[in-house]
Amino acid sequence: MTLLADLLSTVFDRRYRRDGPRVKDGRPLCDLSLALVGSAGETSGLALAEEILARFADLDDAGKLAFFRDIAGMNIDPEAVRTTLEDYERNPTKAGYRAFMEAAEPPRQELIRRLNRVPGATGALVRMRAELLRLTGADPELQALDLDFRHLFASWFNRGFLVLRPISWESPAQVLDKIIAYEAVHAIDSWDDLRRRLQPSDRRCFAFFHPAMPDEPLIFVEVALVKGTPGSVQALLAEDREAMPASQADTAVFYSISNCQAGLANISFGNSLIKQVAADLAADLPGLKTFVTLSPIPGLTKWLTAQGQNWQDATADQMKALAAHYLLNAKVQNGAPFDPVARFHLGNGAIVHAVHADADVSDKGRAQSGGAMVNYLYDLPKVAQNHETFATTQKVIASADVKTLAGSVTLTPSKNTEER
Amino acid sequence: MTLLADLLSTVFDRRYRRDGPRVKDGRPLCDLSLALVGSAGETSGLALAEEILARFADLDDAGKLAFFRDIAGMNIDPEAVRTTLEDYERNPTKAGYRAFMEAAEPPRQELIRRLNRVPGATGALVRMRAELLRLTGADPELQALDLDFRHLFASWFNRGFLVLRPISWESPAQVLDKIIAYEAVHAIDSWDDLRRRLQPSDRRCFAFFHPAMPDEPLIFVEVALVKGTPGSVQALLAEDREAMPASQADTAVFYSISNCQAGLANISFGNSLIKQVAADLAADLPGLKTFVTLSPIPGLTKWLTAQGQNWQDATADQMKALAAHYLLNAKVQNGAPFDPVARFHLGNGAIVHAVHADADVSDKGRAQSGGAMVNYLYDLPKVAQNHETFATTQKVIASADVKTLAGSVTLTPSKNTEER
Amino acid sequence: MTLLADLLSTVFDRRYRRDGPRVKDGRPLCDLSLALVGSAGETSGLALAEEILARFADLDDAGKLAFFRDIAGMNIDPEAVRTTLEDYERNPTKAGYRAFMEAAEPPRQELIRRLNRVPGATGALVRMRAELLRLTGADPELQALDLDFRHLFASWFNRGFLVLRPISWESPAQVLDKIIAYEAVHAIDSWDDLRRRLQPSDRRCFAFFHPAMPDEPLIFVEVALVKGTPGSVQALLAEDREAMPASQADTAVFYSISNCQAGLANISFGNSLIKQVAADLAADLPGLKTFVTLSPIPGLTKWLTAQGQNWQDATADQMKALAAHYLLNAKVQNGAPFDPVARFHLGNGAIVHAVHADADVSDKGRAQSGGAMVNYLYDLPKVAQNHETFATTQKVIASADVKTLAGSVTLTPSKNTEER
Amino acid sequence: MTLLADLLSTVFDRRYRRDGPRVKDGRPLCDLSLALVGSAGETSGLALAEEILARFADLDDAGKLAFFRDIAGMNIDPEAVRTTLEDYERNPTKAGYRAFMEAAEPPRQELIRRLNRVPGATGALVRMRAELLRLTGADPELQALDLDFRHLFASWFNRGFLVLRPISWESPAQVLDKIIAYEAVHAIDSWDDLRRRLQPSDRRCFAFFHPAMPDEPLIFVEVALVKGTPGSVQALLAEDREAMPASQADTAVFYSISNCQAGLANISFGNSLIKQVAADLAADLPGLKTFVTLSPIPGLTKWLTAQGQNWQDATADQMKALAAHYLLNAKVQNGAPFDPVARFHLGNGAIVHAVHADADVSDKGRAQSGGAMVNYLYDLPKVAQNHETFATTQKVIASADVKTLAGSVTLTPSKNTEER
Repeated sequence: MTLLADLLSTVFDRRYRRDGPRVKDGRPLCDLSLALVGSAGETSGLALAEEILARFADLDDAGKLAFFRDIAGMNIDPEAVRTTLEDYERNPTKAGYRAFMEAAEPPRQELIRRLNRVPGATGALVRMRAELLRLTGADPELQALDLDFRHLFASWFNRGFLVLRPISWESPAQVLDKIIAYEAVHAIDSWDDLRRRLQPSDRRCFAFFHPAMPDEPLIFVEVALVKGTPGSVQALLAEDREAMPASQADTAVFYSISNCQAGLANISFGNSLIKQVAADLAADLPGLKTFVTLSPIPGLTKWLTAQGQNWQDATADQMKALAAHYLLNAKVQNGAPFDPVARFHLGNGAIVHAVHADADVSDKGRAQSGGAMVNYLYDLPKVAQNHETFATTQKVIASADVKTLAGSVTLTPSKNTEER
Repeated sequence: MTLLADLLSTVFDRRYRRDGPRVKDGRPLCDLSLALVGSAGETSGLALAEEILARFADLDDAGKLAFFRDIAGMNIDPEAVRTTLEDYERNPTKAGYRAFMEAAEPPRQELIRRLNRVPGATGALVRMRAELLRLTGADPELQALDLDFRHLFASWFNRGFLVLRPISWESPAQVLDKIIAYEAVHAIDSWDDLRRRLQPSDRRCFAFFHPAMPDEPLIFVEVALVKGTPGSVQALLAEDREAMPASQADTAVFYSISNCQAGLANISFGNSLIKQVAADLAADLPGLKTFVTLSPIPGLTKWLTAQGQNWQDATADQMKALAAHYLLNAKVQNGAPFDPVARFHLGNGAIVHAVHADADVSDKGRAQSGGAMVNYLYDLPKVAQNHETFATTQKVIASADVKTLAGSVTLTPSKNTEER
Repeated sequence: MTLLADLLSTVFDRRYRRDGPRVKDGRPLCDLSLALVGSAGETSGLALAEEILARFADLDDAGKLAFFRDIAGMNIDPEAVRTTLEDYERNPTKAGYRAFMEAAEPPRQELIRRLNRVPGATGALVRMRAELLRLTGADPELQALDLDFRHLFASWFNRGFLVLRPISWESPAQVLDKIIAYEAVHAIDSWDDLRRRLQPSDRRCFAFFHPAMPDEPLIFVEVALVKGTPGSVQALLAEDREAMPASQADTAVFYSISNCQAGLANISFGNSLIKQVAADLAADLPGLKTFVTLSPIPGLTKWLTAQGQNWQDATADQMKALAAHYLLNAKVQNGAPFDPVARFHLGNGAIVHAVHADADVSDKGRAQSGGAMVNYLYDLPKVAQNHETFATTQKVIASADVKTLAGSVTLTPSKNTEER
Repeated sequence: MTLLADLLSTVFDRRYRRDGPRVKDGRPLCDLSLALVGSAGETSGLALAEEILARFADLDDAGKLAFFRDIAGMNIDPEAVRTTLEDYERNPTKAGYRAFMEAAEPPRQELIRRLNRVPGATGALVRMRAELLRLTGADPELQALDLDFRHLFASWFNRGFLVLRPISWESPAQVLDKIIAYEAVHAIDSWDDLRRRLQPSDRRCFAFFHPAMPDEPLIFVEVALVKGTPGSVQALLAEDREAMPASQADTAVFYSISNCQAGLANISFGNSLIKQVAADLAADLPGLKTFVTLSPIPGLTKWLTAQGQNWQDATADQMKALAAHYLLNAKVQNGAPFDPVARFHLGNGAIVHAVHADADVSDKGRAQSGGAMVNYLYDLPKVAQNHETFATTQKVIASADVKTLAGSVTLTPSKNTEER
């Protein structure tokens, strides 16, 4: 909003540019980390935090692992937890609760919070967690450390703090750079390709941002405005297609959703994104009546193969039927859909609307789903109830057509395969 | 910065304006709260959270107290803490740590985090805590609940997330309204008075904002640009004084610092504010060499009276000496300065620079300090070291003049008086 | 738009703040003016222009008049006009046309253009013309000079360069200051009064700005959103009224339109303002069906008195009829309506919709119109045609009710009175 | 500035997006043009103007020429000029002056002004003039029409209305597109090449914009921050060079200045650009002591060849000497420097500082100047005086080194060659 835009415009710049010589403390990073957690005041704390972040960024993998192990060691003291808990039970005072809180939270959480006090640190911490995830492997101590990062990030990257922003050909090149880099579904191979996704009157793109990382999109969705539900991504992205005035469209197609930050893995905001974008588009373009995805079916061929089902020789009609069957029936052990994209959209309250063969004929599309794709439908008035139903029963809601298609296939699922 | 300003400008507005009819669930608030914490998905969670916030705002004090008691009851289960802790000790896995984390954090923390997912909720939660503080009294359960609020707010209102913004006669009236309302040191009695604090070329004002509360200053400082260190607030704020070009000033005087949000009590950002403002002013106005406060001495007469020291008949020189003596020698039991303003500035790394009699002749000034005021000096290159010294030793650093003055007084402190 | 906002945000500030010592040339202003017009290049021209503007601002009335007389003397040379014209007729070349153009335009026009090259000069020139208008009197040379100002201003304050902006309680105090100062119809007597005009959900205000005078509104209109056409300004502005959600309103009332810049007299943009505001409101609030004014009738009692018509003892019904009669029948010599406000709105394509007695019971309202007011209706689809009809025929279009009312009065207009 | 940025942010967008169906009047364009000039009011005028602009854009060259011929015919009536002039001489009243003004200005000027009332029209008119210049040829009537465009554009694109804006990797892709398209000195061949000009810490770019064409740069300058005066553009633009912190630079090099709008030919703002950019850089980066160009010498080989001077076999030293000689001695008939770039920078108050051989070894560089380039020095404190000297005497000011070099060459200029 105006006030916020205004308030930020003059100041932010400056603080990011302060890059004078850092006074190096010189102590080992783990000592600095302990000092930071124990630091009596903000002034020295900020300097410590800056130095830790700056030195961490320069470490090699071995150095980073060593640092992570060091701070993973800043764990709870079980004895202190027990003692303070007993004190608090006996004597449930404010001081008692405070003592328990402090004992029950590992100091490494406070360390991460204090690191975050440095202007610009949030992005550095997200990158730090990306490194942690890359290096963690099966180490349970590092996995526990990651849970602390995740706990704090879930609080900081809370939906209420995120800002939805249109990405367009008017956006800063610096942001567009990242759209090119992060597009994970249908790769953008050049600035001209990007321009085709953003500039035409019938294309839209939206991303979530966090105010403390203003030039880093967190997740974005690409939208095509069309007439009728599309059945092929080739047609949707054809280089020589003619753009249409947005006001003539009746359907918004979410054809690509990409997470941008490896360091925000498992911090969920994708579902808000689609629903808010749909609501905003509906308000801007009253002609839009239908909100669907055109989604890949990444687990299809893998699952079919696991079932011993031949799919490589399937006709287009057979492929559609197999896809429908898979979407409705393939499950992981806890009963959720086998397909991760299906889990995402059904979990958001969408339904399986239509399946298409030869809809993604790229190498990747052929390999993962024999070229099939699916439309998930976001029927805004019903999204909440669909979500509820799915969350409670894990029942896959689908259109009559898809159900009929799925019913036309005979295929005995031999086993469920876990995939998450 | 530009990117951020830009990203926020289009979107924020809209989401604050959504004020359609809320679907009322109708269940008691405590049931809604439990449902929210248990809520399987975001969609229904958001609706629940909105309803809780909206209905809370309409409650009377009794209703609010009841709500606070209900959610205070969403406390840890000691048995679960113990069990998960033991499991984790025996078998320190990721899952074990996660189970302990969940058990050791009261569900009311998660409740507050989920409430915060609603756009615009942060301000509502700050107001909610203000109500909590107002109503808590000596109830230890509510005090513990407040610790949870405070814990989360310290994370959300982290220095790294705050934005420093100049407040001027170009600022929105909506923000200026709040400056008038929140000025706590030298009351602003009209828009004309406000204009005198903001518009002249030798006046500045800065505030911290949080991006999720863009029209609510959190804390602000008023600055006068002058020649030489000022010894009287009357002269500084005289209605008929002549403004000076900022470039001619050699001294920046922080003459008023006010917290704006009762709901952010004990979440500290005041020290960052002064230091960042000083740094920014120094960069903008190279003529500025000295950064001082002109501060009240709120505990002076109270302490003198407690010592049995007559001060009402003191001459100006005697009052100065008494003030100097007090600032250097009056302590609370833990050895910190008795004066709360002194604790704040000395804790920031400032030193006691000069004392003045007849410096605040308002009723309030006479009553609290016999009209005396003090300059704390922020000597930027030494602030970090001063802070360190003070944090470690609690020794009050003062100028030679002030020490001499303080030494001229013979007064036997009969006792320390606790005040916090 | 975003690009523009962005482009302006960093730079403008700085250039307004340059207020270093001006190098004074010292020559008389008229010599500087001649030098500026003759100036070979931009560098020295800018310095000259700055000095002229700065020194003009410090002149007293006599000095200003002398300056205006001097530059009025920078007039066309009739002989040169004739010669170049004949040359051009004989030999219609580019060079010939250029020579004629230069001869036919008085050098004082180029002087004003060159003064305008200084950043921030546009506002200074508008103020200069305000002074000229104040001091001109019947002097035909100064009147001619004013025509040159007006000619240039009409080009610079072209509708295509103006920006319509909402004024709200979020607007900068510096702009609101001017709204208070310039409100010409229903005086705003305090910031609280202003707040009542801007902050409630059912109030709007819009102004035109020129990018070269970003903190100076040029003209603004205040709007009340209501149900049904209002018949009294007292009710509309009552301090204790309850605000209504904007979405519930069916009618937008333009109850006050004020020009802000005396120096832009006779540069017309008021008609665009109302029409654009109506169009924007209609787009934002689909519930709005009716766009009317609640306007004073400033010439009513004056005209009635001139007709020898007693109005002081009229009943409310009689006053309404007299007002209707006046609006439909009172004309100036060229056939246009006698009432200046009527000329403005009818010229914009509005029609006389309804008249009300006791609608403005302030002293001013009683004196100028016996308390009567009028609604002009902007029926958006018909505005262009109404405008065309009025522009061609000067026929006053009115509702059936108003015509009936007007017909109920017998009153022989004894003469037309010129007023412009 | 904030106010301006703020005021523009909400509104502009909207008005550019109005692209509903235009009501076509259907009359020939010339009739519409006459109607627009005669139009009684703004409402119908705007519709007429929109239709003229929209239909013009769709015309082919023949249609455009016909349109230009038609409006060129809206010329002055010499008889009316003479009559009103005589009346005014006899009776110098306001009305008389007004009548003369109207007669002496061709109606086509008023036509252009009225076209400009449409929001967004300014850019369309600039493009219209670009078409006019392309099609005019030797037609004196069209040349005269162009003088009218130029007259109005000089007033509208007045330096005081322009906004200087940094162009960076944060700028909108839509603007960067145009930087790529318009770079006229050292072509930018890809987005990666553009990134190398904008993103490194030691590169800057600035452009002038007009508020009515917010996404169209008018002219831009590219700047390299370096240590010492550079002697080769290859080194400056090397793909593999290492960027330097801006604070370490002592010299700002203006290595490319490009006009963007063919329709603004001969509307001068380049000189302001360099001087303002230099002043802004000096304020931001106190380490900068020297402001120079690294400029092509586009007329060098052409002139040498015209003098019968062999240059193709010159050694590097000889080429430097020839370049120095040329810059100091080659003149067009009116005594100005033969080299157009020299005329530009010397006219701005710069001096010839140093010449370099093998400084631009591209094909273009070799062909136009045998690879030689020149530094013009902007010595800020002396720029105004240099400009004055040059404007008055056309004497080329040069450094002692360049004079010595130039003196080392014996070469009898056989003739002056006119080039403008």
